[in-house]
Amino acid sequence: MAERAGAAEAAAGARAAPMRWWGWGEEGRAPGLSAGMLELLRERVGVSERPRPPVALANVRLGEPGLTAATAGRLRGIVGGEHVREDHFDRVVHAAGKGYPDLVRVRAGEPEGAPDAVLYPGDHEQVRGVLEECVRAGVAVVPFGGGTSVVGGVAPLRGEHGSVVALDLSRLDALHGLDLESLIVRVGAGLRVRALERRLRQRGLTLGHFPQSYEHVAVGGCAATRSAGQASTGYGRFEDMVLGLRLAAPAGDLVVRAVPASAAGPSLRELVVGSEGTLGVISELELRVREAPERRAFEGAFFGDFAAGVAALRVLAQEGSAPAVTRLSDEGETRLSLAAVGSGEGLAGLKRRLGSLYLGARGYGSGCLAIFGFEGSDAEIERRRGRVAEVVAAHGGLGVGSSPGEAWAKQRFSSPYLRDELLTHGVMVETLETAVRWSGLTGLHRSVAGAIEGALNAQGTPGLVMCHVSHVYETGASLYFTVLARQREGREIEQWEAVKRAAGEAILGGGGGTITHHHAIGRDHV
Amino acid sequence: MAERAGAAEAAAGARAAPMRWWGWGEEGRAPGLSAGMLELLRERVGVSERPRPPVALANVRLGEPGLTAATAGRLRGIVGGEHVREDHFDRVVHAAGKGYPDLVRVRAGEPEGAPDAVLYPGDHEQVRGVLEECVRAGVAVVPFGGGTSVVGGVAPLRGEHGSVVALDLSRLDALHGLDLESLIVRVGAGLRVRALERRLRQRGLTLGHFPQSYEHVAVGGCAATRSAGQASTGYGRFEDMVLGLRLAAPAGDLVVRAVPASAAGPSLRELVVGSEGTLGVISELELRVREAPERRAFEGAFFGDFAAGVAALRVLAQEGSAPAVTRLSDEGETRLSLAAVGSGEGLAGLKRRLGSLYLGARGYGSGCLAIFGFEGSDAEIERRRGRVAEVVAAHGGLGVGSSPGEAWAKQRFSSPYLRDELLTHGVMVETLETAVRWSGLTGLHRSVAGAIEGALNAQGTPGLVMCHVSHVYETGASLYFTVLARQREGREIEQWEAVKRAAGEAILGGGGGTITHHHAIGRDHV
Repeated sequence: MAERAGAAEAAAGARAAPMRWWGWGEEGRAPGLSAGMLELLRERVGVSERPRPPVALANVRLGEPGLTAATAGRLRGIVGGEHVREDHFDRVVHAAGKGYPDLVRVRAGEPEGAPDAVLYPGDHEQVRGVLEECVRAGVAVVPFGGGTSVVGGVAPLRGEHGSVVALDLSRLDALHGLDLESLIVRVGAGLRVRALERRLRQRGLTLGHFPQSYEHVAVGGCAATRSAGQASTGYGRFEDMVLGLRLAAPAGDLVVRAVPASAAGPSLRELVVGSEGTLGVISELELRVREAPERRAFEGAFFGDFAAGVAALRVLAQEGSAPAVTRLSDEGETRLSLAAVGSGEGLAGLKRRLGSLYLGARGYGSGCLAIFGFEGSDAEIERRRGRVAEVVAAHGGLGVGSSPGEAWAKQRFSSPYLRDELLTHGVMVETLETAVRWSGLTGLHRSVAGAIEGALNAQGTPGLVMCHVSHVYETGASLYFTVLARQREGREIEQWEAVKRAAGEAILGGGGGTITHHHAIGRDHV
Repeated sequence: MAERAGAAEAAAGARAAPMRWWGWGEEGRAPGLSAGMLELLRERVGVSERPRPPVALANVRLGEPGLTAATAGRLRGIVGGEHVREDHFDRVVHAAGKGYPDLVRVRAGEPEGAPDAVLYPGDHEQVRGVLEECVRAGVAVVPFGGGTSVVGGVAPLRGEHGSVVALDLSRLDALHGLDLESLIVRVGAGLRVRALERRLRQRGLTLGHFPQSYEHVAVGGCAATRSAGQASTGYGRFEDMVLGLRLAAPAGDLVVRAVPASAAGPSLRELVVGSEGTLGVISELELRVREAPERRAFEGAFFGDFAAGVAALRVLAQEGSAPAVTRLSDEGETRLSLAAVGSGEGLAGLKRRLGSLYLGARGYGSGCLAIFGFEGSDAEIERRRGRVAEVVAAHGGLGVGSSPGEAWAKQRFSSPYLRDELLTHGVMVETLETAVRWSGLTGLHRSVAGAIEGALNAQGTPGLVMCHVSHVYETGASLYFTVLARQREGREIEQWEAVKRAAGEAILGGGGGTITHHHAIGRDHV
């Protein structure tokens, strides 16, 4: 049952190309800001008077590549001469991930650092060989999958090492085997999620993992960072999909063999999943897949306010009827989404389209948009859609048909492109996520938003803070904040740090022990 | 919304009593072996000619209690004088768990060891105080919850320590708080699962955790050992229910605050859950609860053979329609279950009751019994039951109504009592569990059963090996083996070790990397 990536797909042309060195995604695909959005930004945030494009590639300043000839030679012996690259382009592409400070620095031609060389190993043994050689030679190694990290995950930090190399895993893109009976696929860690999904669809299967970075992220990166996708309510987080893995580490290999996920006892798998590359390099994964759904359908709903929408989502999550995509924007994000979709018409026009009579009659001066994405057979979709409609109505919500959901689905992977556009307009964009139990959700929403607004005001750059819920659980949900503000030119990083600090303190401080951010650990008495 | 255990329930009478020192459960509740089962045992296993009851309590041999007067005094200062017990009864009760070798030794009056004292701390601070004092004094500490371990989890091993104490957590039985909005309960680690379930039912809620040890196990023990209940297909394993915890450790405290389970990033929680007491003592837990279902209903089905039943379970698990209880016995277990239920009539009588005409017409000389337990509203149960019936029929199975499921539900917590009866009849009983992907399931079933049968034959005690599937996942399922054989009198432990070794080797060796047991870790190159 094993199948190997076809020759055509594995050829250089089909192998995933690196993203634009100064931003997200592919050349020639840059959705601009809509007129409505620009209008809203001018009014509420402020934009730069002259465009702030990235510098020319040649003007990105890097240090001299610092690998010794002997080390470079030995590394060539391991991965092959053409797979050790020390040229300017390769080093720039691997100099940073796609976080806000990464982009600010790279666009200015001043990355924090760059790898001395980029290595492209072709298999697990080469990965281990590289790690062994680098330990011997005192060279730091940074694993690089899709390069989509937004939290500095691929920063080429030398630490106390004399030099640093990026380990680009894009050649580890094989589909090693597919167990159709157990629905388990074995793949190389460098395989892109989108490429895997396409292969699976040909067999009527799906992985069901659709993070915002879907078009570029590699499976190994998803495992190393416990990635959550937009359909996580239906498919679970990426860690729920990882059944087995192979890790190359300087001290040797670790193999976790695939067992039905929840039946495995202790947690070496858990330690590796989420280790962010600190323990070793994941070279191979065994992942759970599913039958692809027959059909998908979207349904939008408008709630009078965020609390009403949250209450509806809570009921759905706790009774087990939340659909695969379950998403609720707060008032601020709803306003911006409507502005972004419309062509200059803004909220008023959208409300017209959504049926302003109804909205007006209900007194929704503003309101919150929810999007539900259903999957399955017609009968299953109908049954679930019916129950969601009941719960929405019981919370004063109003069904607004399929168009908002379809619009969202169409552009759901393009937000990172918008970020590039915003940077060119001199606008800071940052996002941050937390999770909270239901009883603390609206309180935390208010306190974090307030803290960020306070920090922006203190920086002299009042802006927009908005939020959505996109992952719901029986006991609580995620909150995903987006912050937009006029950049403080020349002091972008300082401004960004102030926002991050304020948000982090609000998250940790809020709710008296019921709230936490991703690292949910406190130590009282160590 | 917080509520505390009522005074009445917290009184000494209501506090969970220890189990019978020589076996399972409560005095005065010992379901005997049915005539049908005794007949089958005589025929296939052999029983002892004279009963082999446990020795008298006074004849259990323990060493002198070895705590120094100074240490005992300091421990009394921490937990109170009446909560440090060095008497014969308390030491015997805490000398062992309920595994087969534990019972063999204790019944013979020769436990492997016993704690020098039993401590009953009353709160988290006392637990930490005891740990600090014991570290200072070089005393080993064994946490003791319900005392239900069947894998030597509470053995009072001194190691290199001069003495050892059992830390009985039964006084930590408070219900500290109930967050009705988030459906999270905060409880002391010593609270028994059954007591918690009763409290929750009064509020229309359920924990949904029903391991075989349900009537006696404490929540802390479930967390420390990653317990799986009989309804795990619907409710998940215990680790899925743990949102937060408080751990007292010699080096200090660790607090993991409750967040919606799957949203928490890294895995300190995962490390503690499953740590089996090696990192510290869990004193408090935050657990997910659910609305109690309106109704429960059972449905039995007969399959022509194990493979057909497994294929049906696979379809149900992979399409998401497996009910909360999903259970399939192999031919051997089916035969024994029918014999155990019937009063002397054996398989023939049961087949008559189940409709022998149908079974005969289908040619089911033997066959495999599946039990499905549905929960929810009438409409939900009907919908799910209809789908299960379709899948059963598509795999040649035959619905046999609700009686087998109801019979199973009635006695599902009493198997440990039967084990005591079997020991009195000179019959060894051991159980062991593994998990395997679907594509390797029937192969592993055969190879493990064969290995155990081989080991029994080599010991000169051919017996019965049977198995069931009770936890199904999308990618695979659990296999739970039960072994019955005539005891080798005087060499019981040797005989038991031979069986465990053969089974373990078969599990590790089987299936070429697709199969594993609970500790799914291999190391290639360390």
